[in-house]
Amino acid sequence: MILEVAPLYIRPGQAMQFESAFQEAQAIICSMQGYVSHELQRCIERENEYLLLVRWQTLEDHEIGFRQSPRYQAWKTLLHHFYEPFPQVSHYELIVAEPEFR
Amino acid sequence: MILEVAPLYIRPGQAMQFESAFQEAQAIICSMQGYVSHELQRCIERENEYLLLVRWQTLEDHEIGFRQSPRYQAWKTLLHHFYEPFPQVSHYELIVAEPEFR
Repeated sequence: MILEVAPLYIRPGQAMQFESAFQEAQAIICSMQGYVSHELQRCIERENEYLLLVRWQTLEDHEIGFRQSPRYQAWKTLLHHFYEPFPQVSHYELIVAEPEFR
Repeated sequence: MILEVAPLYIRPGQAMQFESAFQEAQAIICSMQGYVSHELQRCIERENEYLLLVRWQTLEDHEIGFRQSPRYQAWKTLLHHFYEPFPQVSHYELIVAEPEFR
Protein backbone atom coordinates (compact mmCIF):
# COMPACT_ATOMS: atom_id res chain seq x y z
CA MET A 1 0.00 0.00 0.00
CA ILE A 2 1.18 3.52 -0.75
CA LEU A 3 0.12 6.94 0.51
CA GLU A 4 -0.61 9.77 -1.92
CA VAL A 5 -0.12 13.21 -0.34
CA ALA A 6 -1.47 16.34 -2.04
CA PRO A 7 -1.05 19.71 -0.30
CA LEU A 8 -3.89 21.84 -1.71
CA TYR A 9 -3.90 25.65 -1.89
CA ILE A 10 -7.43 26.90 -2.52
CA ARG A 11 -8.11 30.29 -4.12
CA PRO A 12 -9.09 32.80 -1.42
CA GLY A 13 -12.82 32.92 -0.76
CA GLN A 14 -13.51 29.54 -2.36
CA ALA A 15 -12.86 27.17 0.54
CA MET A 16 -16.53 26.38 1.21
CA GLN A 17 -17.26 25.75 -2.48
CA PHE A 18 -14.17 23.53 -2.66
CA GLU A 19 -15.30 21.45 0.33
CA SER A 20 -18.71 21.06 -1.22
CA ALA A 21 -17.27 20.03 -4.59
CA PHE A 22 -14.94 17.59 -2.86
CA GLN A 23 -17.91 15.90 -1.18
CA GLU A 24 -19.19 15.15 -4.67
CA ALA A 25 -15.82 14.35 -6.25
CA GLN A 26 -14.72 11.84 -3.63
CA ALA A 27 -17.11 9.23 -5.02
CA ILE A 28 -14.87 9.13 -8.08
CA ILE A 29 -11.70 8.07 -6.27
CA CYS A 30 -13.66 5.68 -4.04
CA SER A 31 -14.81 3.83 -7.14
CA MET A 32 -11.33 3.26 -8.60
CA GLN A 33 -9.44 -0.02 -8.73
CA GLY A 34 -6.82 -0.14 -5.97
CA TYR A 35 -8.35 2.65 -3.90
CA VAL A 36 -8.09 1.93 -0.16
CA SER A 37 -9.16 5.05 1.76
CA HIS A 38 -8.84 8.83 1.82
CA GLU A 39 -9.14 11.83 4.07
CA LEU A 40 -9.38 15.55 3.42
CA GLN A 41 -7.79 17.61 6.19
CA ARG A 42 -7.97 21.41 6.65
CA CYS A 43 -4.95 23.29 7.97
CA ILE A 44 -5.43 24.95 11.36
CA GLU A 45 -2.56 27.45 11.00
CA ARG A 46 -3.04 28.63 7.41
CA GLU A 47 -6.30 29.60 5.75
CA ASN A 48 -7.19 28.01 2.40
CA GLU A 49 -4.73 25.13 2.84
CA TYR A 50 -5.78 21.49 2.85
CA LEU A 51 -4.08 18.13 2.75
CA LEU A 52 -5.54 15.28 0.75
CA LEU A 53 -4.31 11.84 1.80
CA VAL A 54 -5.25 8.86 -0.36
CA ARG A 55 -4.14 5.30 0.17
CA TRP A 56 -3.80 3.08 -2.89
CA GLN A 57 -2.81 -0.56 -3.22
CA THR A 58 0.00 0.39 -5.65
CA LEU A 59 1.58 3.49 -7.18
CA GLU A 60 0.25 2.39 -10.58
CA ASP A 61 -3.32 2.31 -9.26
CA HIS A 62 -3.02 6.07 -8.76
CA GLU A 63 -0.72 7.17 -11.56
CA ILE A 64 -2.04 4.96 -14.35
CA GLY A 65 -5.34 3.42 -13.23
CA PHE A 66 -6.80 6.67 -11.94
CA ARG A 67 -5.01 9.44 -13.81
CA GLN A 68 -5.44 7.81 -17.20
CA SER A 69 -9.09 6.90 -16.63
CA PRO A 70 -12.05 8.73 -18.18
CA ARG A 71 -13.29 9.47 -14.64
CA TYR A 72 -10.16 11.56 -13.97
CA GLN A 73 -11.61 14.14 -16.37
CA ALA A 74 -14.68 14.48 -14.16
CA TRP A 75 -12.43 14.80 -11.08
CA LYS A 76 -10.43 17.54 -12.80
CA THR A 77 -13.54 19.43 -13.86
CA LEU A 78 -14.93 19.37 -10.33
CA LEU A 79 -11.74 20.30 -8.44
CA HIS A 80 -8.79 21.62 -10.40
CA HIS A 81 -10.14 25.15 -10.86
CA PHE A 82 -9.95 25.67 -7.07
CA TYR A 83 -6.16 25.14 -6.90
CA GLU A 84 -3.65 28.00 -7.09
CA PRO A 85 -0.91 26.99 -7.59
CA PHE A 86 -1.51 23.50 -8.92
CA PRO A 87 -0.50 20.92 -6.26
CA GLN A 88 2.71 18.93 -6.22
CA VAL A 89 1.57 15.40 -5.42
CA SER A 90 3.98 12.96 -3.74
CA HIS A 91 3.84 9.31 -2.78
CA TYR A 92 5.10 7.60 0.34
CA GLU A 93 5.68 4.09 1.60
CA LEU A 94 5.09 3.16 5.20
CA ILE A 95 8.14 2.65 7.40
CA VAL A 96 6.44 2.19 10.76
CA ALA A 97 3.06 2.86 12.34
CA GLU A 98 1.53 2.54 15.77
CA PRO A 99 -0.91 1.05 16.41
CA GLU A 100 0.08 -1.40 13.69
CA PHE A 101 -1.45 -0.18 10.46
CA ARG A 102 -4.85 -1.57 9.56
CA MET B 1 -8.86 14.74 17.04
CA ILE B 2 -6.22 16.64 15.10
CA LEU B 3 -3.51 15.55 12.68
CA GLU B 4 0.07 16.75 13.12
CA VAL B 5 2.01 16.74 9.83
CA ALA B 6 5.80 17.07 9.82
CA PRO B 7 7.65 16.91 6.49
CA LEU B 8 11.15 15.72 7.42
CA TYR B 9 14.31 16.37 5.40
CA ILE B 10 17.09 14.05 6.55
CA ARG B 11 20.76 14.89 6.05
CA PRO B 12 22.13 12.94 3.07
CA GLY B 13 23.55 9.56 4.03
CA GLN B 14 21.75 9.41 7.39
CA ALA B 15 18.39 7.94 6.40
CA MET B 16 19.06 4.48 7.83
CA GLN B 17 20.32 5.90 11.13
CA PHE B 18 17.29 8.17 11.28
CA GLU B 19 14.88 5.26 10.76
CA SER B 20 16.65 3.32 13.47
CA ALA B 21 16.56 6.25 15.90
CA PHE B 22 12.88 6.80 15.11
CA GLN B 23 12.10 3.20 16.07
CA GLU B 24 13.46 4.03 19.51
CA ALA B 25 12.00 7.55 19.75
CA GLN B 26 8.45 6.60 18.85
CA ALA B 27 7.91 5.06 22.29
CA ILE B 28 8.12 8.61 23.64
CA ILE B 29 5.18 9.99 21.68
CA CYS B 30 3.16 6.79 22.21
CA SER B 31 3.41 7.35 25.96
CA MET B 32 2.05 10.92 25.92
CA GLN B 33 -1.36 12.04 27.13
CA GLY B 34 -3.70 12.60 24.16
CA TYR B 35 -1.60 10.58 21.69
CA VAL B 36 -3.81 8.55 19.31
CA SER B 37 -1.60 7.06 16.58
CA HIS B 38 1.31 7.82 14.27
CA GLU B 39 2.97 6.74 11.08
CA LEU B 40 6.35 7.44 9.53
CA GLN B 41 6.22 7.46 5.73
CA ARG B 42 9.19 7.59 3.32
CA CYS B 43 8.89 9.57 0.08
CA ILE B 44 9.08 7.49 -3.10
CA GLU B 45 10.02 10.38 -5.43
CA ARG B 46 12.64 12.20 -3.33
CA GLU B 47 15.47 10.66 -1.38
CA ASN B 48 15.90 11.61 2.29
CA GLU B 49 12.35 12.93 2.62
CA TYR B 50 9.85 11.55 5.11
CA LEU B 51 6.44 12.49 6.41
CA LEU B 52 5.56 12.03 10.06
CA LEU B 53 1.82 11.94 10.76
CA VAL B 54 0.68 11.97 14.38
CA ARG B 55 -2.90 12.06 15.57
CA TRP B 56 -3.60 13.75 18.90
CA GLN B 57 -6.84 14.22 20.80
CA THR B 58 -6.30 18.01 20.87
CA LEU B 59 -3.85 20.61 19.58
CA GLU B 60 -2.80 21.30 23.18
CA ASP B 61 -1.88 17.65 23.71
CA HIS B 62 0.84 18.16 21.09
CA GLU B 63 1.89 21.76 21.56
CA ILE B 64 1.78 21.96 25.34
CA GLY B 65 1.47 18.43 26.74
CA PHE B 66 4.21 16.99 24.55
CA ARG B 67 6.45 19.90 23.61
CA GLN B 68 6.68 21.24 27.14
CA SER B 69 7.25 17.83 28.71
CA PRO B 70 10.61 16.57 29.98
CA ARG B 71 10.33 13.67 27.52
CA TYR B 72 10.42 16.11 24.60
CA GLN B 73 14.08 16.70 25.43
CA ALA B 74 14.79 12.99 24.89
CA TRP B 75 12.85 13.10 21.58
CA LYS B 76 14.90 16.11 20.47
CA THR B 77 18.18 14.46 21.40
CA LEU B 78 17.32 11.32 19.45
CA LEU B 79 15.96 12.97 16.30
CA HIS B 80 16.55 16.67 15.76
CA HIS B 81 20.17 16.34 14.62
CA PHE B 82 19.00 14.40 11.54
CA TYR B 83 16.88 17.30 10.20
CA GLU B 84 18.19 19.85 7.69
CA PRO B 85 16.41 22.22 7.52
CA PHE B 86 14.38 21.99 10.69
CA PRO B 87 10.80 20.92 9.85
CA GLN B 88 7.80 23.22 9.66
CA VAL B 89 5.11 21.32 11.55
CA SER B 90 1.43 21.97 10.77
CA HIS B 91 -1.86 20.77 12.21
CA TYR B 92 -5.03 19.78 10.43
CA GLU B 93 -8.63 19.03 11.29
CA LEU B 94 -10.58 16.38 9.46
CA ILE B 95 -13.18 17.53 6.95
CA VAL B 96 -14.18 14.18 5.49
CA ALA B 97 -12.83 10.63 5.33
CA GLU B 98 -13.82 7.39 3.66
CA PRO B 99 -14.24 4.85 5.02
CA GLU B 100 -15.55 6.86 7.97
CA PHE B 101 -12.62 7.65 10.22
CA ARG B 102 -11.97 5.23 13.05
